[in-house]
Amino acid sequence: MIKVVILGGGNIATHLADVFIRHSSISLVQVYNRTLSALEPLKKHVPITNNLNKLKKADIYIIAVSDNAIELISSKIKIGNSVVVHTSGSTSINVLDKHKNFGVFYPLQSFSKDTPIDFSNIPICLEANNKKDETLLKKLATKISKTHYLINSEQREKLHIAAVFVNNFVNHLYYIGYEICSANEIDSEILQPLIQETARKTARFSPYKVQTGPALRGDTTTILKHLEKLSKNHQEIYKLLSHSIATTYGKKL
Amino acid sequence: MIKVVILGGGNIATHLADVFIRHSSISLVQVYNRTLSALEPLKKHVPITNNLNKLKKADIYIIAVSDNAIELISSKIKIGNSVVVHTSGSTSINVLDKHKNFGVFYPLQSFSKDTPIDFSNIPICLEANNKKDETLLKKLATKISKTHYLINSEQREKLHIAAVFVNNFVNHLYYIGYEICSANEIDSEILQPLIQETARKTARFSPYKVQTGPALRGDTTTILKHLEKLSKNHQEIYKLLSHSIATTYGKKL
Repeated sequence: MIKVVILGGGNIATHLADVFIRHSSISLVQVYNRTLSALEPLKKHVPITNNLNKLKKADIYIIAVSDNAIELISSKIKIGNSVVVHTSGSTSINVLDKHKNFGVFYPLQSFSKDTPIDFSNIPICLEANNKKDETLLKKLATKISKTHYLINSEQREKLHIAAVFVNNFVNHLYYIGYEICSANEIDSEILQPLIQETARKTARFSPYKVQTGPALRGDTTTILKHLEKLSKNHQEIYKLLSHSIATTYGKKL
Repeated sequence: MIKVVILGGGNIATHLADVFIRHSSISLVQVYNRTLSALEPLKKHVPITNNLNKLKKADIYIIAVSDNAIELISSKIKIGNSVVVHTSGSTSINVLDKHKNFGVFYPLQSFSKDTPIDFSNIPICLEANNKKDETLLKKLATKISKTHYLINSEQREKLHIAAVFVNNFVNHLYYIGYEICSANEIDSEILQPLIQETARKTARFSPYKVQTGPALRGDTTTILKHLEKLSKNHQEIYKLLSHSIATTYGKKL
């Protein structure tokens, strides 16, 4: 049985709390948050507190708060020989180095509060300042997910940037596609098979190999026709990404 | 039984030929291409020709060639009262108007030659210059796909632009994500669950609602940290898309 305390009341904190509560060999002994109201839904399943001086004893303390608050929370807690981790993609392990044992437990997924998450498919990126806690974190990760990776702080920062491209930016392009459809009275549902197939292809082929479209073909006639029809903001995005595609494949536009 | 002739030897032509050949109530009576070598794999299933004067009689002639060759091919064929269609997203129905009956049969998907395609999931966008052939094209579409839409030429051009955003540009962002991983010795496989989940979410929620990330939060600290680590080309893309996200949600960066 691994005993865990979670510090935080945001998306990652509550999703982690949910999965820990449901797991028979993880004991979520407490959840802390500055304001208790955010923890209301958890209250009937786990002890909650807003007092950092009243933290219960645990094997792992998980700080799941916004990046700029991690160090402050870390500086205020006393955990003895237990290990403290944060869950941030873009924060170094070293912000926790006032403790003896520290690490990172970063689930690589985009969490929305109202969207249920299947943790078993989320890769957990692990880092620890000592082998014993690396093993402990692996054990915790294995309980909730099929995959984990040892990723150091420098790699994790790069990985977080890659995630911004394939998640945040991709979702914004979906949004633009939907906008273009609805502005032209086209049911945006029509884009679904294309969106899903484009994603599925990457599971079998490298994105480099399956690129298609006017920029890849160097088809400036189509590109110019498209640019004419776009708003200024969408034009800029269209131009920049088309140029980037052309450059990647040694084409000139 | 609907009799079809396909003109073309590229990706769409061969994928359509494959699905027609396998369908018991569609008779693919001939495939034309300027060079016969592109049609080699089809040869044992269907008569092929490189002579536009020797086209067989059919109900529907499908011109599936590159956009700039459609009108030329169309001008060279004689089809009487049959209907001729093209398969292009960004070409008006009117390039075929020298014929009595004409239309468009545009499958909204990105075709790679070596990737097998399940046509039943591909929305077919239809347009015809008369009701009778609209019905005939619907009948053909229904045989190979679960969904079809009546989309006029103006809408189809916009739809094609939307497809460039959610397919070509999205795939390029996948490529950049993969590149960032491999440059940092991270197995790019780690991005798969995030890529798939980001796509799947759009089936249930509007992309507008599920946007996350530093640009949405107006988190300039993280954005600046990320920009520092990126190559010039990736920096420009990161900046422009972050600004577009921020603007969409009324944030300032």
